[in-house]
Amino acid sequence: MANKHNLSEQIVLHGHIIDSLILPRVMDTVMDLGGDFDVTEIRVGRHKREQSFARMKIFASDEAQMSRILTALQSFGAEVENGSDVRTEPAPTDGALPDDFYSTTNLPTQIRLNGRWLDVAGTEMDLVVVVDRERGTAVCRPIADVRAGDQVTVGHEGIRVIPMEREREQEVFSFMRSAVSSERPNSLAISAVARQMRQTREGGGKILFVVGPAIIHSGAGPYLARLIRGGYVQALYGGNAIAVHDVESQLLGTSLGVNLKTGLPVPGGHRNHMQAINTIRRAGSLRAAVEQGILRSGVMYEAIANQVDMVLAGSVRDDGPLPDVVTDMMEAQRRMRAGLAGVEMAIMMATMLHSIATGNILPAHVKVVIVDINPSTVTKLADRGTFQAVGLVTDAELFLRELVEELDLPE
Amino acid sequence: MANKHNLSEQIVLHGHIIDSLILPRVMDTVMDLGGDFDVTEIRVGRHKREQSFARMKIFASDEAQMSRILTALQSFGAEVENGSDVRTEPAPTDGALPDDFYSTTNLPTQIRLNGRWLDVAGTEMDLVVVVDRERGTAVCRPIADVRAGDQVTVGHEGIRVIPMEREREQEVFSFMRSAVSSERPNSLAISAVARQMRQTREGGGKILFVVGPAIIHSGAGPYLARLIRGGYVQALYGGNAIAVHDVESQLLGTSLGVNLKTGLPVPGGHRNHMQAINTIRRAGSLRAAVEQGILRSGVMYEAIANQVDMVLAGSVRDDGPLPDVVTDMMEAQRRMRAGLAGVEMAIMMATMLHSIATGNILPAHVKVVIVDINPSTVTKLADRGTFQAVGLVTDAELFLRELVEELDLPE
Amino acid sequence: MANKHNLSEQIVLHGHIIDSLILPRVMDTVMDLGGDFDVTEIRVGRHKREQSFARMKIFASDEAQMSRILTALQSFGAEVENGSDVRTEPAPTDGALPDDFYSTTNLPTQIRLNGRWLDVAGTEMDLVVVVDRERGTAVCRPIADVRAGDQVTVGHEGIRVIPMEREREQEVFSFMRSAVSSERPNSLAISAVARQMRQTREGGGKILFVVGPAIIHSGAGPYLARLIRGGYVQALYGGNAIAVHDVESQLLGTSLGVNLKTGLPVPGGHRNHMQAINTIRRAGSLRAAVEQGILRSGVMYEAIANQVDMVLAGSVRDDGPLPDVVTDMMEAQRRMRAGLAGVEMAIMMATMLHSIATGNILPAHVKVVIVDINPSTVTKLADRGTFQAVGLVTDAELFLRELVEELDLPE
Amino acid sequence: MANKHNLSEQIVLHGHIIDSLILPRVMDTVMDLGGDFDVTEIRVGRHKREQSFARMKIFASDEAQMSRILTALQSFGAEVENGSDVRTEPAPTDGALPDDFYSTTNLPTQIRLNGRWLDVAGTEMDLVVVVDRERGTAVCRPIADVRAGDQVTVGHEGIRVIPMEREREQEVFSFMRSAVSSERPNSLAISAVARQMRQTREGGGKILFVVGPAIIHSGAGPYLARLIRGGYVQALYGGNAIAVHDVESQLLGTSLGVNLKTGLPVPGGHRNHMQAINTIRRAGSLRAAVEQGILRSGVMYEAIANQVDMVLAGSVRDDGPLPDVVTDMMEAQRRMRAGLAGVEMAIMMATMLHSIATGNILPAHVKVVIVDINPSTVTKLADRGTFQAVGLVTDAELFLRELVEELDLPE
Repeated sequence: MANKHNLSEQIVLHGHIIDSLILPRVMDTVMDLGGDFDVTEIRVGRHKREQSFARMKIFASDEAQMSRILTALQSFGAEVENGSDVRTEPAPTDGALPDDFYSTTNLPTQIRLNGRWLDVAGTEMDLVVVVDRERGTAVCRPIADVRAGDQVTVGHEGIRVIPMEREREQEVFSFMRSAVSSERPNSLAISAVARQMRQTREGGGKILFVVGPAIIHSGAGPYLARLIRGGYVQALYGGNAIAVHDVESQLLGTSLGVNLKTGLPVPGGHRNHMQAINTIRRAGSLRAAVEQGILRSGVMYEAIANQVDMVLAGSVRDDGPLPDVVTDMMEAQRRMRAGLAGVEMAIMMATMLHSIATGNILPAHVKVVIVDINPSTVTKLADRGTFQAVGLVTDAELFLRELVEELDLPE
Repeated sequence: MANKHNLSEQIVLHGHIIDSLILPRVMDTVMDLGGDFDVTEIRVGRHKREQSFARMKIFASDEAQMSRILTALQSFGAEVENGSDVRTEPAPTDGALPDDFYSTTNLPTQIRLNGRWLDVAGTEMDLVVVVDRERGTAVCRPIADVRAGDQVTVGHEGIRVIPMEREREQEVFSFMRSAVSSERPNSLAISAVARQMRQTREGGGKILFVVGPAIIHSGAGPYLARLIRGGYVQALYGGNAIAVHDVESQLLGTSLGVNLKTGLPVPGGHRNHMQAINTIRRAGSLRAAVEQGILRSGVMYEAIANQVDMVLAGSVRDDGPLPDVVTDMMEAQRRMRAGLAGVEMAIMMATMLHSIATGNILPAHVKVVIVDINPSTVTKLADRGTFQAVGLVTDAELFLRELVEELDLPE
Repeated sequence: MANKHNLSEQIVLHGHIIDSLILPRVMDTVMDLGGDFDVTEIRVGRHKREQSFARMKIFASDEAQMSRILTALQSFGAEVENGSDVRTEPAPTDGALPDDFYSTTNLPTQIRLNGRWLDVAGTEMDLVVVVDRERGTAVCRPIADVRAGDQVTVGHEGIRVIPMEREREQEVFSFMRSAVSSERPNSLAISAVARQMRQTREGGGKILFVVGPAIIHSGAGPYLARLIRGGYVQALYGGNAIAVHDVESQLLGTSLGVNLKTGLPVPGGHRNHMQAINTIRRAGSLRAAVEQGILRSGVMYEAIANQVDMVLAGSVRDDGPLPDVVTDMMEAQRRMRAGLAGVEMAIMMATMLHSIATGNILPAHVKVVIVDINPSTVTKLADRGTFQAVGLVTDAELFLRELVEELDLPE
Repeated sequence: MANKHNLSEQIVLHGHIIDSLILPRVMDTVMDLGGDFDVTEIRVGRHKREQSFARMKIFASDEAQMSRILTALQSFGAEVENGSDVRTEPAPTDGALPDDFYSTTNLPTQIRLNGRWLDVAGTEMDLVVVVDRERGTAVCRPIADVRAGDQVTVGHEGIRVIPMEREREQEVFSFMRSAVSSERPNSLAISAVARQMRQTREGGGKILFVVGPAIIHSGAGPYLARLIRGGYVQALYGGNAIAVHDVESQLLGTSLGVNLKTGLPVPGGHRNHMQAINTIRRAGSLRAAVEQGILRSGVMYEAIANQVDMVLAGSVRDDGPLPDVVTDMMEAQRRMRAGLAGVEMAIMMATMLHSIATGNILPAHVKVVIVDINPSTVTKLADRGTFQAVGLVTDAELFLRELVEELDLPE
């Protein structure tokens, strides 16, 4: 086998590489990709606060295999020890990339330029790094925003990511990390979420809520409105439906024709949905409806009255839609990206579409809470990427009600 | 076609047969079974309080078909108008039935004996009616309890069931009747359940709780204990697991090794489960553990202290089990049946096995509430038979917490 | 109570109003809305092929209540017997409606203009009817497409819908109509779907597939490709993800980095997703990639090669997206609407978003099959509106594999 | 902190302790339990075939804490290096244990007796080890079977478990190990299961099927019958329901009253269920019904005709039950345990109750496949204990159909 693997590279790993499972994963990955390794040096922290260090020789049989291995190891924080600078190639046309482009993770990333490590701005999953060699800057950019001639980083040399390490102590979220389950004490989880929200706000971080229409159907609208008034919502992402249902509930007392006081469908009430849309369209927009005194309460009202950074991203199933809904998806993504500055915590409730969309653009350090009655949705969202995500399988209404109580918010 | 259907029988239908969808279902059923019908007389209630009446001629091509049709129509309350008495045949051996046995529904049932309609005692699904002609009595009996020579009703003549009619007004449950959905305002539903519980207790009816182990895991044990202390639980059915978890939580602070204060698994804590079992086995029983002062709080403690009619029915997956668990299934069913006297309302939470077992033996007039985080479970349970069942897709802990608040129960 | 209800209107109901549960629903609705009724005439079909007829007086206490009742009854096919023409009012501005606008169902609808009943073109749910009195035409239109001054129908007079009646015999779908369940013989259902597909194609109807990305992940892509080649797919609606995964699977053998031959994730393979996007963006479009010989097989290839009417409607979670994806939602809806002409059957698989979007714009006569592994999704979709929808809770791959076998399609 | 931890013990770890994540877990556990550690020696395998070794000093502040830590570490294969023999104490009464009893895992376990390591027979989860010092034997025993005076192992000294190590190469199941998902290519998984079944049979291992009633409802009965005839089922565990449905389907063509040819419910067909039960009860048993020629086909027939080791374990929801059903749960567990000898592979389908019951008593080396349409069920089962379990979220019927094809079994 030795003669098959005639190429080698040296990599180093730092930090809690045993405790954080990085070393085993690196070994796994090399073997899964058909390579081999030699651990040439290892220093294991003798007790819990000490860091570990490993130096490994990686063997591969050809360049393509070596490239695949090194690409995979990079996401664990492995650094190739040959001291090369990052390589770049120009984008061939607008909105397209050179073949060997480097695709980012959502972890903090650095590139080596002129022998020095440089932070990449705006790290986010599945983007590319565009380098401005003159200014000495590097930024993440979506493929659609790349312009012909942009210098895009390629290959794997001179690039490193800083893996997340597990915080052990005072880890508010730690107990929720285990497998998603509907049989856990959710009250404890809700207390933990409330504590994290307080901590985030005290530290000046912003909290983002990503919400689906079931919030309104389930009667949880008033709790979300109180969270906004209470200063716990700096950004709000959703779609046309939650806005329409909220308006319908405020103006007509129903949500999709179901009376929210009695829970009974109002016969013929499906019309209320269209009537709510029409009212806002006639007013001009949600903001105009607030200013004209038409909309005086509810989630939309509070979001507007409290200067929440709101993005209503449309979808192909929308009725109407409301004039405030961004119907172009590229524009919607741009606005959602723009709204993330300063966000330290994100709570995603009862929406798969908008939650995935937000998850795609969140940096890894944002603490994410996913709440849904459907365990598949929670699992699907919580499993994506290297997030600090915790999932709660529970009822949105009861969750928000208890959260509001925990945060001691007035009605 | 007329000559194919050379047999006919006359049936009558009374009550809200149009409003309660009985007439359409009768028509449907006759056609689905290949028969035909003539509506010979119909009187439709001119407004909502008036009853309707229909007389129909049913056609079939042979006896077997006619028998199938009449059997099916009986469950809608159709009465064959030929004035015959019920027929009976003796059971051939212990625990077995004559071929043409009549299988009961869970609706009130009457048989005609010597020309007079007689109530059948203990109506329950899928049983048989055993007639004592000397005493002039008729009782429902499970197949296993039938003895050789018992007179078992056969065929379809001289038997009628009284279908449930929809109560329209002040129907506490009505709004929950529609399809099971996780997107409804559960708070409204919980209020309605609380009102129904109050009403049931005020009328002297008993309330049965059927509960699974997730009650304890999810931290809802204390709320259930409060409901028992508050007098809202007269019967409690469950299995070994809920009892063991409850004991473990009271003695060791964990449920299956998960600390209920922190939500974190206690390393090595899986042993706590066996330790709880051993403690009760050493004491002799749950009641003995209460009397010896070993068990001083929790769901089991309260149930014993408050003389709740408790049945812990075993299952093949049980560890231990506790000495109080009934390990023979026939005996467990007998005890569960015996505990149903006076039960007017049943709340089934987080257990499919025990809920189905209870559902099998409940008469149709008992109001049933099914609570589970899994919509499939709720649908499966709510869809069985002709129940007055309503389903809530929600979190057991948040449900019980809110129920306790609605009922204003002290800690 | 009589003196409370001082307004009355006469309505008539025709057809299988008892058998199709229309009469009971009408009675229910009137009472639920606080009105009252008198059945003044009723003729019940004496046997199964005869139609029934009922004339009822509806009582209400004020105009608003009467309006609510009549609006609700209209969707059951009730016709107000006062002989009035439809009323219209001009739209106040572009994209907005007069207050009392009539909101459509997806059932065939007629309006009375100059005393004659006129078909409304393009019936679809939640639209409005715009009348051209000069030309004597009436068309359905989405609110966003209404222009200031358009004559929009208002109120409830002179409007009637033709309710769907249950076909009893030879009803291919009938057995699947009952509650969604994962415990049914899906093979039977798949045979029925195949028969319906054959029947639809023989009658010249088009079949629409609405598909999500799990089709590719689950390895079902080749079966869908065979259905297209076999002439069973005239229209294909989906999003960016299914197209990207399909391209990735054809060019790189993976779907989101998972090798479709081995089922194993390829380490570092998340990059393949972006590489597939980049390849198509460099080619210019999917069609260009086909023409340049880059894309030679797969679902997208077959759809383009076989002139399938394809709409890829974007969403806010899209990566890239591919140049062929319609990123503006209003434009996407327009194209989806345009593609529905001639569609008689729709099969929706593994996508909630695009299925709901399509469901919103389908007329009621289209036969809809919903396939998803998640029962909640199936229930949610199958329960919407008055569709002829049947749901299958099953695995997309095994479903398509068996469908291809049933239809006897070559590889 | 050092002065708090004044107790220490030395432990050693052998094998693929880094690669198999054992070392990180040991570190984690010590810290989670409030202890501390010093890695005094570590030798990391330099490449993939070499084993690693670590020696650690564990610190704790008191005996109770040390005991908790060592108990937890034992399940990872840690061995306390003080050379002590195992300790035992007599059981205080029948069916109860000394306080400090050692609770087993499902991993191979050894105890040190007179300085020599001895294998414990019949390892299974949550049992205790009873030592016969005279004969020098040690056996696992359920608490209920312990007799007063039995020498039960206590504490943590002189006990070690052999942890499972990951096989990397030719690991048929490896690709299914990742998180349960409904979006994977199930065909690949089914091929892998078929290969494993062939391999197991070629090696002389037995295959156990654990099955729920949905097998029959879904029309999959004939495929399971073929698997039995084909020699791929040596043991079959289930309950009353699957047996009754199977008999009903063979004698009357329905399952719970649903015609398996048409998928349509037979009106009045709920009686068929009771009729099937009665037929078998009259015959005396399933075996008697086979011998009398009453039952000539189906799953039960094949199981009896092919000498499959069948256990029908009752439950409290059973109707009837059939005479073959074991209604005492302790007896049912005993029979299930007895049937496991030689079982190398277990396939659990569509039953939570019997799957958990079987999972409780399976040794860790048995390869387990869990098939259910409900992802929660699959997750719940696949997550229990240290199994080699893989889960498939799919349709039981389509799974079995494809499995039969993969195994090339005749009809």
